[in-house]
Amino acid sequence: MKTIEIDIQHALYFAGKEKYDALRPEAVKAMENLTENKGAGSDFQGWVKLPSETPQSLLDDIKATAASLQQKCDYVVCVGIGGSYLGAKAVIEALSDSFLPFIPAPKFPKVLFAGQNIGEDYLSELTAFLKDKKFGIIVISKSGTTTEPAIAFRILKEQLEAQAGKQAAKDLIVAITDEHKGALRTLATQEGYKTFIIADNVGGRFSVLTPVGLLPIAVAGFDIDKLIAGARFMEEKTRLESPENPSEVYAMMRNALYRAGKKTEILVNYNPKLHFFGEWWKQLYGESEGKDNKGIFPAAVDLTTDLHSMGQWIQEGERTIFETVISVETSNCELRIPVDPANLDGINYLAGKRVDEVNKMAELGTRIAHNEGGVPVMRITIPQLCEHTLGELIYFFEKACGISGYLLGVNPFNQPGVEAYKRNMFALLGKPGYEAETQAIQSKL
Amino acid sequence: MKTIEIDIQHALYFAGKEKYDALRPEAVKAMENLTENKGAGSDFQGWVKLPSETPQSLLDDIKATAASLQQKCDYVVCVGIGGSYLGAKAVIEALSDSFLPFIPAPKFPKVLFAGQNIGEDYLSELTAFLKDKKFGIIVISKSGTTTEPAIAFRILKEQLEAQAGKQAAKDLIVAITDEHKGALRTLATQEGYKTFIIADNVGGRFSVLTPVGLLPIAVAGFDIDKLIAGARFMEEKTRLESPENPSEVYAMMRNALYRAGKKTEILVNYNPKLHFFGEWWKQLYGESEGKDNKGIFPAAVDLTTDLHSMGQWIQEGERTIFETVISVETSNCELRIPVDPANLDGINYLAGKRVDEVNKMAELGTRIAHNEGGVPVMRITIPQLCEHTLGELIYFFEKACGISGYLLGVNPFNQPGVEAYKRNMFALLGKPGYEAETQAIQSKL
Repeated sequence: MKTIEIDIQHALYFAGKEKYDALRPEAVKAMENLTENKGAGSDFQGWVKLPSETPQSLLDDIKATAASLQQKCDYVVCVGIGGSYLGAKAVIEALSDSFLPFIPAPKFPKVLFAGQNIGEDYLSELTAFLKDKKFGIIVISKSGTTTEPAIAFRILKEQLEAQAGKQAAKDLIVAITDEHKGALRTLATQEGYKTFIIADNVGGRFSVLTPVGLLPIAVAGFDIDKLIAGARFMEEKTRLESPENPSEVYAMMRNALYRAGKKTEILVNYNPKLHFFGEWWKQLYGESEGKDNKGIFPAAVDLTTDLHSMGQWIQEGERTIFETVISVETSNCELRIPVDPANLDGINYLAGKRVDEVNKMAELGTRIAHNEGGVPVMRITIPQLCEHTLGELIYFFEKACGISGYLLGVNPFNQPGVEAYKRNMFALLGKPGYEAETQAIQSKL
Repeated sequence: MKTIEIDIQHALYFAGKEKYDALRPEAVKAMENLTENKGAGSDFQGWVKLPSETPQSLLDDIKATAASLQQKCDYVVCVGIGGSYLGAKAVIEALSDSFLPFIPAPKFPKVLFAGQNIGEDYLSELTAFLKDKKFGIIVISKSGTTTEPAIAFRILKEQLEAQAGKQAAKDLIVAITDEHKGALRTLATQEGYKTFIIADNVGGRFSVLTPVGLLPIAVAGFDIDKLIAGARFMEEKTRLESPENPSEVYAMMRNALYRAGKKTEILVNYNPKLHFFGEWWKQLYGESEGKDNKGIFPAAVDLTTDLHSMGQWIQEGERTIFETVISVETSNCELRIPVDPANLDGINYLAGKRVDEVNKMAELGTRIAHNEGGVPVMRITIPQLCEHTLGELIYFFEKACGISGYLLGVNPFNQPGVEAYKRNMFALLGKPGYEAETQAIQSKL
């Protein structure tokens, strides 16, 4: 079976093979942490064996729930932020028709997102759009009190109950939340919502292969069995410590480059459907590694689009970056460049070629140009864009992230810095219980 | 009249006022270059006086052309890449309903984009979607031979002629290209397309206020007179060298921070409609400054969304970043947070507030948190999101970019590094005339 492959030869010589190999003992230790459930943040390593331990009964329950929403809804609004937003968004965008939003009556409900911002215009326009529409809600929050999704859910729940009736609304809302405690669990029990559980030992950014990601993905019409099968395949492939373990290779290479002064990593795709996969990856790595005043800065570009915006900087700016390219071997569609006898545009030398052949030569030409400009380039190849390869890719990056965080010397599974703005916001808004903080922050202004 | 304002007090103390002030003589010189049309790249300073020199007759011609397309088309595909894509995309997204793609029959044609990538799936799905649709094309290319738009235009032109007939298609295609020469000019003359001119002295990334940006923006139903009025207002406001000139302030502040070791600038919005404005800004600054192995690395985030992804890194990662926040003072819509007597989610302390009040406290709380975490923060305020303020903002950033590039000591108006990948791609694809390069590159592989 074809699977994902990683090629580091065009990055290795920038860091030096010796420096790369010198990371081996640390990688062995990092793998040991993940395999034996120890090391910093070991309470949050539930994702390591998640694919193989996901019971078929859970997948079947998710599929049945998705089928029920599909049958009743034209739109399903997924309410969540961070890891409760990006995983589903990334997979759905990667697998959907590029013009799905514009298509009048597709086979499956369109999945919309809310609670991922505090946009008054965004929420107003969403509620205006949903007026008289058949819609459902998937609300995702461990506590049920996170500000962004709580605001969005309050507004949308009220609208849904007004439009569909309180009784019918109960069957149109699914809550994904803590097993036992929290506001959303209490509400779901009171109202009788269908629920799924957010496990205690899986952090938000590692949750796409739990119901958090799987339910919206299933609602959008995609095969979550294959997604999990891909992840299981990669779990097995990366299970043992080895110099060929692709997650180890990626983790070691990026840390070797970081130690050699390459401070920014740019995740590159040549398929615009992977745009939000880049956003998911930025959370995974940024939140896992950006702490203790260290960590690679994660950025992402869509090429060749951004060769005409960020391309100049990448080619000739400060030499402190490296690239990781995700390359999809085969397009799902086939389109050839037509002949034009007049050939005014001068591209008849491409006539008859598939569009993707040109894209591939752009990719190769760019890699050579960036290498020659001083940019190390790693390349991750996937055979095609489908549920299985995305499942592989997700688990590959997750495993590599765990290893990489340990190589960096941080706890890859906490996010202490995310609380700072929330505390200030609560103080500024006068949240009950924050009286001392309110006084303190007002004296600063 | 309320206008945009810039506040640097929460950035200044990181660089030191003395170091900021020390840049004054260089800023005076940079302003002199722009005012007197001299300095590196002076051939490409046509954007400096563009707003005030744009005749009303041109705007009227653009509006009439837009009206004709609006009348005949449900969709208008804008074919272009880089500056021939991002400016129009940024303004249209900033002003459109967030759910416009989903709305079945809006007042104006939906503007789609092509030629900004070489995606075989993307182009296949676009042509499938456009089957039997009433569509038109705006094709934007100075030469008419840039690979990405040339491929897309060949395919779409063929489809349009097949669907609408060759005669009718001529009235559905508008070409924006060089005044005299090039493949697209020749074709447009042969076919009798309506055309607009890309001036010789305005580079792609500075072209949004020319027909390149204005025609698609007008087709989407927005008021280009107001957009230009806003730009004229800012042209006047930034015309003279002064310590209060906002473009100078921004250019000096970011260079002072760069010289103090802040290597990455993150453009921050708190309104998701500004996402593509960030992409436009990344091209403007990345392509203008990323050369000679220097230049600030431009990144962008949408908050509060990305506080739950990049937020951790920003708060606690390497202390080499600074932020520039674009803050929209007043939302266009009004939506208040409802009361819920049960208050399980604990947000009744917000009930009755406008959503944007919470957003503003998130912004302030984040600025304080980031400042305390060691991140300098500049803030640019616009009164609201509309054509006038966007025109102001565009010109403000353009003027600041010219000044900033001179402060950095580069030619801000060339982009020599963009050619490298193209040369390699042509060589790899065996483009006629590249025989020597083909041989050279194949020997490297």
